[in-house]
Amino acid sequence: MIMTIKAARDRLKELQRKMAAYEHAMGVIYYDGATTAPKGTAENRSVSLSILSAEVYDLGTSKDTVDLLEFLDAFKDKLPKEEQRMVYLLLKDIRDMQKIPKDEYIAYEELVVRAEDTWHRAKEASDFELFRPYLEKIFEAKKRFAGYLAPEKDPYDYWLGEYEKGLTKKDCDTFFDKLRERLVPLIKKVSSMPQPDDGIRHGAFEDSAQEDLAYRLMRIIGLDLDHVGLSTTEHPFTTSLGSHLDERITTKYLKDDFAASMYSVIHEGGHALYDTGSKDEYAYTVLDGGVSMSIHESQSRFYENIIGRSRAFCRYIFPVLCEVFPEQMNGRNAEELYRAVNRVEPSLIRTEADEVTYSLHIMIRYELEKRVMAGELEVKDLPAEWNRLYKEYLGVDVPDDKRGVLQDTHWSGGMIGYFPSYALGSAYGAQFLAKMKESVDVDKCVETGDFGPVNAWNREHIWQHGSLYEPGELLQAVFEAPFDPAYYTDYLENKCKDVYGL
Amino acid sequence: MIMTIKAARDRLKELQRKMAAYEHAMGVIYYDGATTAPKGTAENRSVSLSILSAEVYDLGTSKDTVDLLEFLDAFKDKLPKEEQRMVYLLLKDIRDMQKIPKDEYIAYEELVVRAEDTWHRAKEASDFELFRPYLEKIFEAKKRFAGYLAPEKDPYDYWLGEYEKGLTKKDCDTFFDKLRERLVPLIKKVSSMPQPDDGIRHGAFEDSAQEDLAYRLMRIIGLDLDHVGLSTTEHPFTTSLGSHLDERITTKYLKDDFAASMYSVIHEGGHALYDTGSKDEYAYTVLDGGVSMSIHESQSRFYENIIGRSRAFCRYIFPVLCEVFPEQMNGRNAEELYRAVNRVEPSLIRTEADEVTYSLHIMIRYELEKRVMAGELEVKDLPAEWNRLYKEYLGVDVPDDKRGVLQDTHWSGGMIGYFPSYALGSAYGAQFLAKMKESVDVDKCVETGDFGPVNAWNREHIWQHGSLYEPGELLQAVFEAPFDPAYYTDYLENKCKDVYGL
Repeated sequence: MIMTIKAARDRLKELQRKMAAYEHAMGVIYYDGATTAPKGTAENRSVSLSILSAEVYDLGTSKDTVDLLEFLDAFKDKLPKEEQRMVYLLLKDIRDMQKIPKDEYIAYEELVVRAEDTWHRAKEASDFELFRPYLEKIFEAKKRFAGYLAPEKDPYDYWLGEYEKGLTKKDCDTFFDKLRERLVPLIKKVSSMPQPDDGIRHGAFEDSAQEDLAYRLMRIIGLDLDHVGLSTTEHPFTTSLGSHLDERITTKYLKDDFAASMYSVIHEGGHALYDTGSKDEYAYTVLDGGVSMSIHESQSRFYENIIGRSRAFCRYIFPVLCEVFPEQMNGRNAEELYRAVNRVEPSLIRTEADEVTYSLHIMIRYELEKRVMAGELEVKDLPAEWNRLYKEYLGVDVPDDKRGVLQDTHWSGGMIGYFPSYALGSAYGAQFLAKMKESVDVDKCVETGDFGPVNAWNREHIWQHGSLYEPGELLQAVFEAPFDPAYYTDYLENKCKDVYGL
Repeated sequence: MIMTIKAARDRLKELQRKMAAYEHAMGVIYYDGATTAPKGTAENRSVSLSILSAEVYDLGTSKDTVDLLEFLDAFKDKLPKEEQRMVYLLLKDIRDMQKIPKDEYIAYEELVVRAEDTWHRAKEASDFELFRPYLEKIFEAKKRFAGYLAPEKDPYDYWLGEYEKGLTKKDCDTFFDKLRERLVPLIKKVSSMPQPDDGIRHGAFEDSAQEDLAYRLMRIIGLDLDHVGLSTTEHPFTTSLGSHLDERITTKYLKDDFAASMYSVIHEGGHALYDTGSKDEYAYTVLDGGVSMSIHESQSRFYENIIGRSRAFCRYIFPVLCEVFPEQMNGRNAEELYRAVNRVEPSLIRTEADEVTYSLHIMIRYELEKRVMAGELEVKDLPAEWNRLYKEYLGVDVPDDKRGVLQDTHWSGGMIGYFPSYALGSAYGAQFLAKMKESVDVDKCVETGDFGPVNAWNREHIWQHGSLYEPGELLQAVFEAPFDPAYYTDYLENKCKDVYGL
């Protein structure tokens, strides 16, 4: 193959723009399906998505593409580090793709569209049996694909590592053991204390007022509304369409609890801050957007919890709530809000859980995934095991699958191995906070609604780099020390001391 | 080329599915842009759309595709008539595409995305100068493309014929002359009469109540909400995504006039009934959906006006309005509604015009397009000419470009030659009504809210055929006579007699 490096670099750019356009197309079809599309149209989307994913497969594995990337890889020393990383990431993806037979690749894309649609209906009807055949196929595909992609690895380790490079069951076990050791006694202690009143978050809140609050929150945390949109959906998520220049967050309004959507918006807003914080020149390249799910969740959960559930934020936001919900906030105050949103209480729903019990929800999902992937648990037995573990870990009785095993969308989208990212991300966030506080007066900024310095710190250390560095490299560079979950458990203990006066 | 007819027919199916997937992708990117996307994201969409349109160009003009279609064309006698028509339509599109240089084809796709975005902002600011450079480029491109596509034809005739096969300026002139002859004296006469009170449509109408009404209307006219969605937008439109199995209509709520969105929903609903009425086996083929814009507008304007502004419909819908707007409808009645929505009054905005003056709005646009395409009028002079013609034809003073030359989105999307479809479609609709009445008691059906027989007639004669027949063939088959605009002018005169007691 005869090509100049200059020409190859131009073609590298063009290839990534083309891939970004397909991602835009497939992303917006997904987004439309999750937010706006009429109920009976999943089949139609699945037809288009399977065709488009075949086009992506052909583009990625074509001789032209492989030759180009191998050529650039051979001359990588002559490339700027950004382009070295692009070639590395693209080659990894393409080599992975080549290992999966095209028909299975496409069948899987079709499967997840149908599975998500079915999950929606199964959740609505609280009917696991409806969803079961799809979930079985998804777990089977995940095991089979892991066998194609890394036959030398344990299948679940493989998928954990895809969401967070290098992560294994062993790491997760160690990490969760450390959390368990500190959190279980903490939860026990707190459970015996008088509970703060959380009446302030409950009442009757109109969708339109909640939407008003959502847009205010987006502005407050520093999102650029010219480039970040908001929609409603069953299970909130964030996505970039084409590039970080068009970012979408989603939420869901609960009539009787404004705090559910409030924290959902701040959580998804954290994802959106991270994505849209990529350097502009990374748009339409594989460096655009966050590097791993754990780092992504470190940002979403940092804004949601560390910032959003701080006393400083409650003080800043309370007057805003009074404007949006004047009747409901009448006679309330910021301290009540702070205590209400930090009430520790074992509960059924992960996304509505408090910070302290949250990781137990994750551990349950982790345990279950691990056992299904290892062949130690069958999909049909998931609901019973789910309920048993909720009783054991959290002491709660699961009344139905809707509020049990069907509550989360992740498995229906094939995201097996994703859940640990939430707990890891939360823990990274606590260690980020400690570093940030060395140079930023975080509480003062938040209490005055001045997110500038907080965002500038995150932008400098995390966001701007997009996917340029491996997650481990990035963490090392920011922490200037190894990752230590004690920052997180210390943070949670301090929060409980403050709220419960332990 | 060695291929069996069987194999070629399979590939024909596959080719059309692929094209439908790209149309789905590009359609949903457009739809998202017009309904949901944040304001600053047009550039991002234009990047993706230009890449995807290049992919479509390459797919359509590839040797494989051309060979396949020419092979099938050579053996067309051996194909069922549906596939003969598919081959004909695909070959026409592809031969057209081949005549336009690829770079100009792609640049044009980019241009219209940017132009629509700019039109939105220009309309908001009532600033024609902002939009002018884009509109100039669009008219230039349309003239240049017509030169590539049909150098033997007049450029405007070419584009008129693209929206309605065979249509020319001469036909339009004749048609509009006939309308003018009957409508101008009619409007003059009506203008001298006391006007019906239209207070019933004005007041303060919440978006949420208007949305409730919109969904009720969709159900009433017989749309299947599992396959037809509703969103809001600046300029209402209807689109299919991927196939007629996923149809979207859009509307816009005016706070002070519920009838604007009501008739917009029925209008777009008529388009959606036509599209979704295609035979299911036409999904993912070029036969799916309506055959021409005039026939499309015949359906939308049939439901909007002939049905929607009939006394029978007003009687049926009034109790529904009382449920949706109980305070505003208090003390009103169906006859007031009927008279209010049939008030004839020269006005500024086409989409809000009454049935009688409507065609004059179309004639103005037709005149202007015709003259710009012929080089007799410059784009920069459009606002002044627009205002002059509104004064001459309708006797109204245009206060600003927002309510003048910038009111419609069509030119920004490159739809030059489209406007006559509205008037032609309206006239077709009146002749359809005459035929329908031979076997259906339309008034009785509508007055009881039973759209079944009306829809069944349209389905049998029009909808199910999708694009199988040429517009002229279809009309001939349904009318069993030549098209005669007198049905339309008679219909309008009768309406005025009834409302104004002429």
